[in-house]
Amino acid sequence: MIKTPYLLFLGDAPDQLAAKVAQGIKDWRPDNAVAQFRMEGCGADVGLSDMTLAEAQAAGAKTLVIGVANRGGIISAAWKEILIEALNMGYDLASGLHNLLTDEADLVAAAEANGRELHDVRIASVDYPIASGKKRSGKRVLAVGTDCSVGKMYTALALDKAMQAKGMKSTFRATGQTGILITGDGVPLDAVVADFMAGSVEYLTPPNDDDHWDVIEGQGSLFHVSYSGVTLALIHGGQPDALILCHEPTREHMRGLPDYTPPTMQQVADLALPLARVGNPECQVVGIAVNTQHMSEDEALAYLAAAEAEMGLPAVDPYRFGAERLADALAAL
Amino acid sequence: MIKTPYLLFLGDAPDQLAAKVAQGIKDWRPDNAVAQFRMEGCGADVGLSDMTLAEAQAAGAKTLVIGVANRGGIISAAWKEILIEALNMGYDLASGLHNLLTDEADLVAAAEANGRELHDVRIASVDYPIASGKKRSGKRVLAVGTDCSVGKMYTALALDKAMQAKGMKSTFRATGQTGILITGDGVPLDAVVADFMAGSVEYLTPPNDDDHWDVIEGQGSLFHVSYSGVTLALIHGGQPDALILCHEPTREHMRGLPDYTPPTMQQVADLALPLARVGNPECQVVGIAVNTQHMSEDEALAYLAAAEAEMGLPAVDPYRFGAERLADALAAL
Repeated sequence: MIKTPYLLFLGDAPDQLAAKVAQGIKDWRPDNAVAQFRMEGCGADVGLSDMTLAEAQAAGAKTLVIGVANRGGIISAAWKEILIEALNMGYDLASGLHNLLTDEADLVAAAEANGRELHDVRIASVDYPIASGKKRSGKRVLAVGTDCSVGKMYTALALDKAMQAKGMKSTFRATGQTGILITGDGVPLDAVVADFMAGSVEYLTPPNDDDHWDVIEGQGSLFHVSYSGVTLALIHGGQPDALILCHEPTREHMRGLPDYTPPTMQQVADLALPLARVGNPECQVVGIAVNTQHMSEDEALAYLAAAEAEMGLPAVDPYRFGAERLADALAAL
Repeated sequence: MIKTPYLLFLGDAPDQLAAKVAQGIKDWRPDNAVAQFRMEGCGADVGLSDMTLAEAQAAGAKTLVIGVANRGGIISAAWKEILIEALNMGYDLASGLHNLLTDEADLVAAAEANGRELHDVRIASVDYPIASGKKRSGKRVLAVGTDCSVGKMYTALALDKAMQAKGMKSTFRATGQTGILITGDGVPLDAVVADFMAGSVEYLTPPNDDDHWDVIEGQGSLFHVSYSGVTLALIHGGQPDALILCHEPTREHMRGLPDYTPPTMQQVADLALPLARVGNPECQVVGIAVNTQHMSEDEALAYLAAAEAEMGLPAVDPYRFGAERLADALAAL
C-alpha cells in the first residue's frame, strides 16, 4: 500500500489536462493530498496549496505522487533533481508513468540509500488470462468517449457514487493509473500485453450478484487512432450491459492528433454499440456525460438540453451537476 | 533481422500440421531455406532435402529456425542437444515458441560462448512509439478477417507475390510469429504493450514511394472478443488505403469461442470500413479472400461466384487459385 497523505507533484505540466492524475486524487480522495508541488513554468493547478518538499513534510506528507502524465510517460531530467531530493528527505515515490521509477538507476540508488519505496502503479503484477468471452453474472456499465481525457474516469466515479447513494450495489473498476492511485486496485490496461488486454478486463470484472453493477473506467476512444485498440478490448472484455457516451464539446481536434476532428456522440454510438453487441447482444446506450468545464453554466445547461433532445437520452455533466439521472437510467434497465 | 538462409528444424513433429511454420517458410520464401532437419520419428516433411547441421552449414545456412510448434510451445530436452550443437557450430537460433530460447540457461550460455544470437520472435525487442496518426506517403493494404486463423497471412503473402509478378512495388509486412520467421523481420503485435500497438504498426509501415504498397498481415478479428483490440490497432496504425476481407465459410463458431457465431463478410465490412476511415478517409474494401480448403473445387468456385455477386467485389481463394484479381483491384485504385 502507498503511504498517505501525498504531496502531488505537478512538475512542468504544460497544461491542466496533463495533471489529470493529481486532479483525480484531489477531487475524489481530498484527504489523501496535503498540497501540490509545481516547478517553474508549470501550466497546471489542481487547487491545492503550493508547498515545498519541507513544508509538505511538516504538514504530514509521506509520499510524493507524480501527478502529471506527459506524452510517452517519460521521467524527464528536469524532474530528477526534485525526486532524488524527496527520497533523501524521507519521501516514498509513487508513479503511474510508463517510464518506471524502478528503471531509473539514480532513483533506485537514492531509494535504497534512504530505505524508501518506489511504487510503479502501472506495472501489471498479474498474469492475466486470454479472454474467454463467457457470459458472466452481474451487470456492467462502461464509459466510452469521443476522445481521450474527456471525463470517462470522472463519469464512472460520479456514477458509482450516485448509484451507492441510491442504495444500488456498485463497484468502480479502475483501468488506469489515476483510478488505481485513487482506489488502490485495478488493471493498468495500457501496460498490458496486447493478447491479454480483454482477458485482464474480464479478470477485473468477474461474475457477481445479479443486481451488482461494475462501473468500468473507460480508456481512449474508438476514434483515437493511438489508443483505439485499448478501447475495443474494454468493450469486448467488459461485456457491458450499458454504455455511457462521454463528450467534451469544446475540443477542436483529437487530443495529441492535430489533424483529427473529434466525432459526434452519434458517430461514437453508431460504432460502439454494434461492437459491444458482439460480446453482449443486450447492450444499450443509456446516457450521455458531457464535460462542460470550459462552458458557462448557462451554456452548459443549454448544451445538455440540446444533447438530450437530439439523442433521446439523459444528458448530464456528472461532475458539475451530479450523475443521479445516469444512475436512474441504469436502475430502470 | 534474422540472418538467412535457414536450416528448418522440424524436430520430432508428430504430424504435418505441427510443422506449419517451416511449411510457410518453404512455401513463401524458398530462397530462405536450404534444407530441413528431422529427428528420428518426425512425422512432418515440408519437401526440402534432409541435411545434417554440417551439410546445411556447408550449403550456406546461417540460422537454425525452429519450424515446429508442439503442444504448449515447449523446447523439449530431446531438442536441446541439437540446438546446443548448432550454436557450437556457429548457427544462430530463431524461434516463435512461447517457451523462449532466452529463458533456457544452457542455450543462453552456449550462445554467449560462441558469440551467436538467439531470436525469440514472440517478444518485442524494439521500443515502439505511440502512434502519431500522421498521414504517410505510400500505400497500404490490410487483410481483415471474419475470425482468427482464416488465412489472413497467406492472403497477404499471395497478394504480395501477385503484385510483384505484375511489376508493382510491394512489401509483405509481418505482424505475427510465422510471418516474421518467413521474412526475417516484422512486429510481434500480440506481444506489444497495449499503448504502443498502433505505434508499432506505424513503425512497421513507414513512409515510402507513392506507388509502393505495404501488404500488412492481419491479426484476430473485430468480431473475436479475445483479440479485437489488436485488430483495431492494425486498422488505425496501418492507415490502410484498402482492405481485403478474409473468410472461412465452413467455420461453425468463432475460433476458441463456442458461443460466438462468425459474422458475415458484410458485417465485417460495415464495421471495419468506418473504423478504417477514421485514420484514412479514402479507405475502401477492394476484394474478398475466401479460404476454401474444406470445400471441393466445384463448391469453392460456386461459393466464390456467389460471394462476388453478393458483395460486388472480386472474390478469390488466393492460395488455391491465385491472388491476381486482388492485385488488379489494388492497381486500379
